[in-house]
Amino acid sequence: MALDRLKQTAAIVSGDTGPPYPLDPLTEAEIETAVAIIRKEHNGLFFNTVTLWEPRKAEMMAWLQDPKGTPRPHRVADVVAVGRGSKVYDGIVDLTEGKIVSWQLTEGVQPLITMEDLQIVESIVRKDPKVIEQCGIIGIPPEDMDKVYCDPWTIGYDERFGSNVRLQQALMYYRPHIDDSQYSYPLDFCPIFNADTQEIIHIDIPPVRRPVNKAPPSNYHTAAIEAEGGYRTDLKPINITQPEGVSFKMDGRIISWQNWKLHIGFNYREGLVLSNITFNDKGNERPTFWRLSLAEMVVPYGNPEHPHQRKHAFDLGEYGGGYMTNSLSVGCDCKGAIHYMDASFVNRAGQATTIKNAICIHEEDAGILFKHTDFRDNSCTVTRARKLIISHIFTAANYEYCVYWIFHQDGTIQLEIKLTGILNTYAMNPDEDTNGWGTQVYPGVNAHNHQHLFCLRIDPNIDGPENTVYQVDATRSDAPVGSDENKYGNAFYAKKTRFENPVQAQSDYNAATSRTWDICNENKLHPYSGKPVSYKLVSREVPELMPKEGGLVWKRAGFARHAVHVTKYDDDQIHPAGRHVPQTSGEPSQGLPAWIAANPTANIANTDIVLWHTFGLTHFPAPEDFPVMPAEPMSLLLRPRHFFLRNPCLDVPPSYCSVPSGVEQGGALVDKISRLAFREGS
Amino acid sequence: MALDRLKQTAAIVSGDTGPPYPLDPLTEAEIETAVAIIRKEHNGLFFNTVTLWEPRKAEMMAWLQDPKGTPRPHRVADVVAVGRGSKVYDGIVDLTEGKIVSWQLTEGVQPLITMEDLQIVESIVRKDPKVIEQCGIIGIPPEDMDKVYCDPWTIGYDERFGSNVRLQQALMYYRPHIDDSQYSYPLDFCPIFNADTQEIIHIDIPPVRRPVNKAPPSNYHTAAIEAEGGYRTDLKPINITQPEGVSFKMDGRIISWQNWKLHIGFNYREGLVLSNITFNDKGNERPTFWRLSLAEMVVPYGNPEHPHQRKHAFDLGEYGGGYMTNSLSVGCDCKGAIHYMDASFVNRAGQATTIKNAICIHEEDAGILFKHTDFRDNSCTVTRARKLIISHIFTAANYEYCVYWIFHQDGTIQLEIKLTGILNTYAMNPDEDTNGWGTQVYPGVNAHNHQHLFCLRIDPNIDGPENTVYQVDATRSDAPVGSDENKYGNAFYAKKTRFENPVQAQSDYNAATSRTWDICNENKLHPYSGKPVSYKLVSREVPELMPKEGGLVWKRAGFARHAVHVTKYDDDQIHPAGRHVPQTSGEPSQGLPAWIAANPTANIANTDIVLWHTFGLTHFPAPEDFPVMPAEPMSLLLRPRHFFLRNPCLDVPPSYCSVPSGVEQGGALVDKISRLAFREGS
Repeated sequence: MALDRLKQTAAIVSGDTGPPYPLDPLTEAEIETAVAIIRKEHNGLFFNTVTLWEPRKAEMMAWLQDPKGTPRPHRVADVVAVGRGSKVYDGIVDLTEGKIVSWQLTEGVQPLITMEDLQIVESIVRKDPKVIEQCGIIGIPPEDMDKVYCDPWTIGYDERFGSNVRLQQALMYYRPHIDDSQYSYPLDFCPIFNADTQEIIHIDIPPVRRPVNKAPPSNYHTAAIEAEGGYRTDLKPINITQPEGVSFKMDGRIISWQNWKLHIGFNYREGLVLSNITFNDKGNERPTFWRLSLAEMVVPYGNPEHPHQRKHAFDLGEYGGGYMTNSLSVGCDCKGAIHYMDASFVNRAGQATTIKNAICIHEEDAGILFKHTDFRDNSCTVTRARKLIISHIFTAANYEYCVYWIFHQDGTIQLEIKLTGILNTYAMNPDEDTNGWGTQVYPGVNAHNHQHLFCLRIDPNIDGPENTVYQVDATRSDAPVGSDENKYGNAFYAKKTRFENPVQAQSDYNAATSRTWDICNENKLHPYSGKPVSYKLVSREVPELMPKEGGLVWKRAGFARHAVHVTKYDDDQIHPAGRHVPQTSGEPSQGLPAWIAANPTANIANTDIVLWHTFGLTHFPAPEDFPVMPAEPMSLLLRPRHFFLRNPCLDVPPSYCSVPSGVEQGGALVDKISRLAFREGS
Repeated sequence: MALDRLKQTAAIVSGDTGPPYPLDPLTEAEIETAVAIIRKEHNGLFFNTVTLWEPRKAEMMAWLQDPKGTPRPHRVADVVAVGRGSKVYDGIVDLTEGKIVSWQLTEGVQPLITMEDLQIVESIVRKDPKVIEQCGIIGIPPEDMDKVYCDPWTIGYDERFGSNVRLQQALMYYRPHIDDSQYSYPLDFCPIFNADTQEIIHIDIPPVRRPVNKAPPSNYHTAAIEAEGGYRTDLKPINITQPEGVSFKMDGRIISWQNWKLHIGFNYREGLVLSNITFNDKGNERPTFWRLSLAEMVVPYGNPEHPHQRKHAFDLGEYGGGYMTNSLSVGCDCKGAIHYMDASFVNRAGQATTIKNAICIHEEDAGILFKHTDFRDNSCTVTRARKLIISHIFTAANYEYCVYWIFHQDGTIQLEIKLTGILNTYAMNPDEDTNGWGTQVYPGVNAHNHQHLFCLRIDPNIDGPENTVYQVDATRSDAPVGSDENKYGNAFYAKKTRFENPVQAQSDYNAATSRTWDICNENKLHPYSGKPVSYKLVSREVPELMPKEGGLVWKRAGFARHAVHVTKYDDDQIHPAGRHVPQTSGEPSQGLPAWIAANPTANIANTDIVLWHTFGLTHFPAPEDFPVMPAEPMSLLLRPRHFFLRNPCLDVPPSYCSVPSGVEQGGALVDKISRLAFREGS
């Protein structure tokens, strides 16, 4: 089959049947072709990753500029494979040419943990005599070992075991019944699993033991709700229909909607990758961002007792936001007319697998776009907004992350993330004090303090790749109250600090000054304001990294030390905590700190740059978050400023428009777009 | 007619035909009754305000506790009237007893400017010879005076004129055509209007003159859009229907929805007032907030040149968010099944007038309420959220403020404000430098830097009126990295600072520590967490007040000096910048600073308190905001923490629910609530 696939791919990439777009994820055929090409030369491998090695930016931009006169970027696979003895191989395979470009054994690293890697652990721990013994100590008899579960995490980093052996830590739980939420029954010990030998090599046992929780189950499935009186019956349906279909068009994976145009990529790690985002400004297709993605995240937990310091998941770099993505076919999380896209990956055995409906694309009504009433005569224009939402949802063991990339008609791009799912929990005895490091959210259940810190990689292309970042702070005039320059004390202005090199650009958030960051093109000034065309990063959920400087998380998650880093563009700098994240010690720190240290005086002004933005929230759990957490949203904006000549969405049909001269206008438009609202609302 | 109304009201308040609920706004009949009662004793008055004098809290709570054994609170009117010579009268009229309770001449104050007060000014300035002369100087001939417009603002405060004469400043504009947006043609001078004598008493003329703008109009009405190529035609309709109607019930003005119950009030000033908000927690109707409202706001502009320091509108205290509210009958700003409520006010002549559809009440689908997938077997529960939105929109001259009070099923209350409308603009010459105090958003149009700072009055009732506020900061352990207590440096906790008195409680925002404020009832501890039941204020748009300490705005807008103030409850403390805001000098500061100064050591712990929260945004205008501004949203949350035993919305019917044991559950529910989404989406 793999050889059939090879021929098939050769046909596709040669253009006979229309090749994939250069930014498209690898197809199933391409994945299996890459594996087949490698297997011709290398054996005994488990496949960890076979993903698109994206075209180099210069090559891709050149091809976009002149697709006929420039060679089409090759289809290339980025491969990670694991051999016996935890040996890690990194390879590049040119699918267009059908050959391996590079292949190397990489020492001292561990690639991410796949879903298959995870699944293995639970069956092993159940059979391990030492685990069975520990279960017995806290009250689980050997015959109940089928009720023992674990969420296997990468070990993260544990100095006792280093980085050369591929290890997972098994966060242990118990289910009285198979349908019970295990998070009400955390176990107090933590086995360490060697993925190479597939055995438990150590168990971390706390000095004070905590017998398995005796509290009744806390569930939210139908049987549990029925037993408590059933579902509420007072919700009347809200139907959202799009009888004429959607307002966007798809050309392969390139979507066009309300002047926006962009390519929708997806990979095992970042999940959604949005590329070559342009806005059609009255016929002129203007670039805005070359590439946007969530590039990394870290979830540090705040309990200092051993071994909880190991709980600081890099969910993207250690597990993969794509690998963990939900198939939305079983219950879509959006209403209206939905367009889905699948996602294909390699499995451990080197076969292609596909998650159906991994990506959801849909529109939503978005309330008022703009409105103004003249108080003299009540003449009024009110126009409703529409938004386009490209989303996926991934499950990282207990938590779910719902990622919504939202495009607005006014040129704004919004990233919204909703956190839901279940708290990570640990056992506590009835009389135990959490010492402030956590909360007893249910009897016997301690949910530790934690943060969710995301790193957004912004590769801007504001009217071209030569961009500059300014930090902008609302600042009071220096002139004192009573002086000629500031008699009444009201003077304030936007203080702009130009970022010249990556060290100086390391910047933190300041709510007091309404701090934002302008990403601008200094070579193009707005004709009215005289200011560079720009997009402004407006982000208000920006806590500091709580783990202390010099500590484990601070060392491993260098990207989270500041709200903003800016680096000179480099094709190979995608992953701000490093390419292979599990079991990095942070000595030295991988990714962003290493890149900056390598060239601290690099010019980042008026050149091709990347802005890395870390944002997120701090979570002190409460009983309301249990047994499943109501979604907690968080949002940031990229807003055009001095980019458009004026409000770029004035031509969206209004719901209502009247003018002082008394002519009612727009009635027909009301009928088309907002008829139902008006009929029912008036 | 007024006497008929008097009898009618007497009948109503005596209970013959069902009296209004004690918190209901005054009816038209009650307003005219109040006027009639006053006119029996006082003549020659213009009416400024006739609004509900709300029942005293103790009286109202006692009646709620025992409606049969306690006297029903009287219907009482709070009256402000203006006599000749700018004389201001404050009165209280007991409608139940049909008598004046108090009546006094208040010296040195000016009540707010009504819409009628505003409307008068434009006709006067057009006829004023000195204004005509100034228009001529900048290029508007006398025959074009019908094209001259003004937005009359209260003078705010101008030390040259003091507080004893009722004054407005006329921000001047020009319209080449009646339908043209005047904000493209600001005029450079500013007449001062005496409301008592109805004449222009002074004109502020800048040292450098700016001829009227010669740029073509910048409009957004239908004719303008048609001339530029017409409306876009690629938006397909999104229909939102509720075939079975809404899920809420109205009992008079008391709404019940998804365990929430509250009274919806409305007054001339704060607009929406939400009272006695309770949440039915499994049959136990638990109080959460006694009263929520936007109590004040200030919009300071940052240009220090005279007389722009006077641009710092207190839109609620100086004009009234209720008085300026839009009638939503002409084009509802919401979709689905809408329930409207009207708002009645007094006019200058003492008659009742009603704004139809002043309040909009509707539900919206709110995306995912919670979701979790078990990665082992893809068993999954996903439940969609619903929200209830109670909103109004008011137009403050150029700007619109859309106020959405949003109730969530998980017990969260959200306040969302959307800013739209048009920038306040000033004239600039072609070669002029804005000096950083503003932006040229269109040729000849300077939009000054400004802030929108809102003061949310939170009168909590967290399981009763005895409440305490804690400031909560995410804080690193003191123990150094490497120490036994914090070996890996990851320890952090929620540091809580108890507010004991109003001086100590003056607190600012700190994004670095994810600062929040817990409003809690220390007398009731959560059985699991051991922490007091609480609601947490989560607010992330909290800039500092930019006008400097000691300056005019700082003095007048004392509430805006800190993000949070806490005071001991007092029935008479509703307005944080004072009862009568126009022409206050800020010497001494009215409202919050005065109350705190009067009793700086008042106990505010475990007693009846009010939390005043100032939030908002800083706006550096850009051309995208012109000629009408795409809505800019801002939001804050009041979230239950340690209040419910657990997630209080587990019984919301899921869209999909399956469990590991393999039984698919909830299929019928999918059909009822989410059928259309699923049919079209799969």
